[in-house]
Amino acid sequence: MDDDTPPFFYVMNYASEAEGDVIDMVSGNPDWEPPEALREGLREYADAETDQFQYPPSVGLRELREEIAKRRGVDISQVIITNGAGEANHLAMAGGLEAVDGNEIILADPVYPYYDGRTSLLDAEKTLIPVDKDGHLNPETVHKRASEETAVIVVNSPNNPMGVTYDGDAIEQLLGVAEEYDALLVSDEVYDHFDYSGRFTSALSFDSPNRIVTNSFSKSMAVTGWRVGYAIFPREDRPAPYNELVDSARTRHMLTNVAISRPAQASVLRALRETDPSYYEAVREQMVERIDRFTSALDAAGAEYTEPEGSFYVMARFPGLPGTMENIEMLIDEAGVAGMPGEAFGDSRSDWMRFALVSPRVEEAAQRLAEFFE
Amino acid sequence: MDDDTPPFFYVMNYASEAEGDVIDMVSGNPDWEPPEALREGLREYADAETDQFQYPPSVGLRELREEIAKRRGVDISQVIITNGAGEANHLAMAGGLEAVDGNEIILADPVYPYYDGRTSLLDAEKTLIPVDKDGHLNPETVHKRASEETAVIVVNSPNNPMGVTYDGDAIEQLLGVAEEYDALLVSDEVYDHFDYSGRFTSALSFDSPNRIVTNSFSKSMAVTGWRVGYAIFPREDRPAPYNELVDSARTRHMLTNVAISRPAQASVLRALRETDPSYYEAVREQMVERIDRFTSALDAAGAEYTEPEGSFYVMARFPGLPGTMENIEMLIDEAGVAGMPGEAFGDSRSDWMRFALVSPRVEEAAQRLAEFFE
Repeated sequence: MDDDTPPFFYVMNYASEAEGDVIDMVSGNPDWEPPEALREGLREYADAETDQFQYPPSVGLRELREEIAKRRGVDISQVIITNGAGEANHLAMAGGLEAVDGNEIILADPVYPYYDGRTSLLDAEKTLIPVDKDGHLNPETVHKRASEETAVIVVNSPNNPMGVTYDGDAIEQLLGVAEEYDALLVSDEVYDHFDYSGRFTSALSFDSPNRIVTNSFSKSMAVTGWRVGYAIFPREDRPAPYNELVDSARTRHMLTNVAISRPAQASVLRALRETDPSYYEAVREQMVERIDRFTSALDAAGAEYTEPEGSFYVMARFPGLPGTMENIEMLIDEAGVAGMPGEAFGDSRSDWMRFALVSPRVEEAAQRLAEFFE
Repeated sequence: MDDDTPPFFYVMNYASEAEGDVIDMVSGNPDWEPPEALREGLREYADAETDQFQYPPSVGLRELREEIAKRRGVDISQVIITNGAGEANHLAMAGGLEAVDGNEIILADPVYPYYDGRTSLLDAEKTLIPVDKDGHLNPETVHKRASEETAVIVVNSPNNPMGVTYDGDAIEQLLGVAEEYDALLVSDEVYDHFDYSGRFTSALSFDSPNRIVTNSFSKSMAVTGWRVGYAIFPREDRPAPYNELVDSARTRHMLTNVAISRPAQASVLRALRETDPSYYEAVREQMVERIDRFTSALDAAGAEYTEPEGSFYVMARFPGLPGTMENIEMLIDEAGVAGMPGEAFGDSRSDWMRFALVSPRVEEAAQRLAEFFE
């Protein structure tokens, strides 16, 4: 999530102009160090021969695609390196819409605002399905609402903004709906390194041509501004029209972006090769600690919240304080904590608030909230 | 030009598999050093605080936009930083097509293949207008062919693949055609630092809301793979629908790419501030020398060629050897020089060949050609 969508911009601005000290829990920018090999990779690249500064292949550096293909257990021909998961989702949604019959895109509500905006940009019919009480999209509800008109179903797991993780059964059932209606499941897995429930299952685990998986290194390597992501499309030996998705995405990618910035690709490649699993583990543990502290404060404040299972976010509702923009402003002014209003993510949780746990001051924020609601 | 469009890929591949030594004059990748401040900028960025690694503003780093706005004499609100000129042209063509009446895009023939492909991607009606004998698109011909159906006219000056530069009169006349039919002139000026004729005039020199100017640092800083470009849209105080172009481009950019890679933006900013004009002058002088040597060899070979006025390219026709793919292969095998067949750029120069002067071995290539045709 970046800071440009209007409600984000508004809240960031309001918080920065507030009189007192405000703890920023608005946007999903990691506040921790990237892997050391990433910085090393950039230093190394700065001294490279000039031919290394010229156009990489449009689909991405071959070695980076190989590393990704090997790790994800797919063929290298299925992988396109993109300008972050943003472009990966754009290619997946635009390509899916074009390839199959139907013009409907199904999204969860609350929704990550980029999916919503992109659906409008693509002139698709938008169906927002409210999540259940536990914060999960119910595959049976999706099944009931889907039809021949359905072209794309987007799922984000671990999820922004709900902070939940979908299990393998749910992903398999959603994939089943896509298969039944000759549609595509777009599975955005950018928070895959941030599952605390142990239930995260990639859509790649299921053998189906009806899925496109998107991901990026923005969160796992703490570099949301470097813009290196990827999409994994069905193999070209799959039945039509799924076999054509990767090639039409290559064309769309080439004609939109030509190629992706090479300094960032080269650094991510080095970090991918050299970073020990303990790096990811330590970051995950830090987030688990932050969640513990923050939810303890929510308990103390008598707040209702969706049990955090993954990603960086906690959705909460305070007694007598629905998550409107007015109340967000009030919490900034009077408690010194800035979150996002639920209404920024759709209708179903419009009286909730979203807090991003990407600040070293999470514990302090928790105390401020507990004291405010005492 | 990158190496992924099918004919480029084919020629590069053929050349690399040829038996003897082959001099590569196929693609437009600079073979010289970038400004030293660019490498410095990347080293500096590698040591930055972690918050510098997170999402930059979607429209680009403010300081970079300020530098560009100042140099180009426009308001900062008109500038969007893009993933190279590729994305800038995509935003300009897609946005122009959407904003004004008509569905026709007018292009010069020979055409830079990305304009052609993008026109197809956007489902626009394509009108290719052959250039005159001197390699220039004739504004009067464009005027005769344009109509109410015309939405966008794309001009590239200095030009790829013709190697010519348009003068101010031509740009003003093309702009006049755009104004007459409520269309947009998209002026791609990526080779603006490589004008040898002294006649280059930016479309920004004329006060009109009917133009979008695109550019990048790929050629001027010799980093085609870093992907930092920009588009300059009409001001928001211009009449409708031109006033809305920049805001709809911001939305399209955000929903396609979210933001542009920050290491590259930060480095370009530093290079833009610190690079002395003598850097650009030295690179231009090197290119003038290469052109002299190459055209002398063409003269010696009895070849016809379009007088080089700008960019990196020379279009030439050898006696009895039309620029088909077969003859390109023959020159690779028997002369050890790889160019591009004219047919890769449209119909009007399909029996010519394009040579990119981005090799330190230009003189050697020239000798090989002169000897071959002796």
